[in-house]
Amino acid sequence: MLDRIRIVLIGTSHPGNIGGTARAMHNMGLSDLALVAPRCEPLTSDTVSRASGADHLVRGARTVETLEQAVSNCTLVVGASARSRTLPWPMITPRALGERLPGELAGEDARIALVFGREDSGLSNAELQRCHAHVHIPANPDFSSLNLATAVQVLAYECRLAWLAQQESAPGADPEPPQPLATHEELEHYFAHLERTLVAIGFHDPALPRQLMARLRRFTLRARPERMELNILRGILTATEKQAGGGNDATP
Amino acid sequence: MLDRIRIVLIGTSHPGNIGGTARAMHNMGLSDLALVAPRCEPLTSDTVSRASGADHLVRGARTVETLEQAVSNCTLVVGASARSRTLPWPMITPRALGERLPGELAGEDARIALVFGREDSGLSNAELQRCHAHVHIPANPDFSSLNLATAVQVLAYECRLAWLAQQESAPGADPEPPQPLATHEELEHYFAHLERTLVAIGFHDPALPRQLMARLRRFTLRARPERMELNILRGILTATEKQAGGGNDATP
Repeated sequence: MLDRIRIVLIGTSHPGNIGGTARAMHNMGLSDLALVAPRCEPLTSDTVSRASGADHLVRGARTVETLEQAVSNCTLVVGASARSRTLPWPMITPRALGERLPGELAGEDARIALVFGREDSGLSNAELQRCHAHVHIPANPDFSSLNLATAVQVLAYECRLAWLAQQESAPGADPEPPQPLATHEELEHYFAHLERTLVAIGFHDPALPRQLMARLRRFTLRARPERMELNILRGILTATEKQAGGGNDATP
Repeated sequence: MLDRIRIVLIGTSHPGNIGGTARAMHNMGLSDLALVAPRCEPLTSDTVSRASGADHLVRGARTVETLEQAVSNCTLVVGASARSRTLPWPMITPRALGERLPGELAGEDARIALVFGREDSGLSNAELQRCHAHVHIPANPDFSSLNLATAVQVLAYECRLAWLAQQESAPGADPEPPQPLATHEELEHYFAHLERTLVAIGFHDPALPRQLMARLRRFTLRARPERMELNILRGILTATEKQAGGGNDATP
């Protein structure tokens, strides 16, 4: 799925932003980059520095003259836009875009382009009107312009989450087996041991229980103790009982 | 809500990343920045350039020497971590973090810190073990290290989405005011007290720590102790110390 999502940068001015875009893409598992009429040399030392190991995406990028050439084989073209324009266009949020991806990419030939404009002036109206929809990253209205590579990161992140959700819905092995949790019985043995110990050290008087044991139960159960953790806690109780002189490990 | 979310950068090396962080924060409506032992001059021309109009956040940032100082009044401390460590900690996704925010910040004194490590080596194990949970941005396993400011952007974006969702949901009274949670500082005092007590009763040898304190930290932080619960636990420790003959309430 991710290999059929193309990032298109139009008229980029700063090589560092192209490098940062490559890094964000590679971080999120995207690889298809197209540069439309860049206003800088795409591959400089700044590019390589900001790409931080992902400059192969820039070397492999297609550089073209027009948006048309960059998106011609795409079945969905979405333009990133900070502003609402004179002619309102279908607007989606980054999250809604992610949710649409699996359906949009269900067909074998389906391809999606996410189009980003110039650092200073964004996408032109003509460019925006070549898009099926516009995506707007919800930002502080008083300071709404994100760095270009950062904006790519946010949309690429939503793409990756959508892809991961799709992977998860497919059957597969759990990556990490969870630690065994303590059973109810083990927990009850622990609480009994805890109460005996608190009595032995003079902290707890069962004749005047207040809500001490209830509070300790609630706290402990909230943590969902693992069996190994409970064993540690019981070891502490046994060591404490020895100090109190009343150590007795006979009961469970 | 957004004004009670603090971004904490530890040991940052590049002023540009501090500027980029400020821009990402201001874009998403966050304003509370703390710098822990930066390894560069925080405010340079690179900072101002990458901040692109948000450098007032850097000028207003608190610079401190230790993580403790940066997060002492926070009720939830979440560390950004790319790697699973030897002792797995509660992991959450950025999205799950966003979904938890309204509840976490329901209490008036609640404050959240999102902690980011060094560009080259991330957070240390000691730093990670001071966090309630770790957040991992799901990335390409072969290229998982995001640019620092870009990682801040992703988490700040999730914070903003959570805030926007809360704004949209109709105002209404919370059914039950939450109990005040223990602050980071109170938790650290508890852990110090716990360790002293375990030494006093002969259960713990700091020269052979194994992972005892880390396991007890993980268990306790997972439960998100309320202040009152922590007071009970400290009462138990004090009573235990008296039994061990080494009772000493002087230290915090």
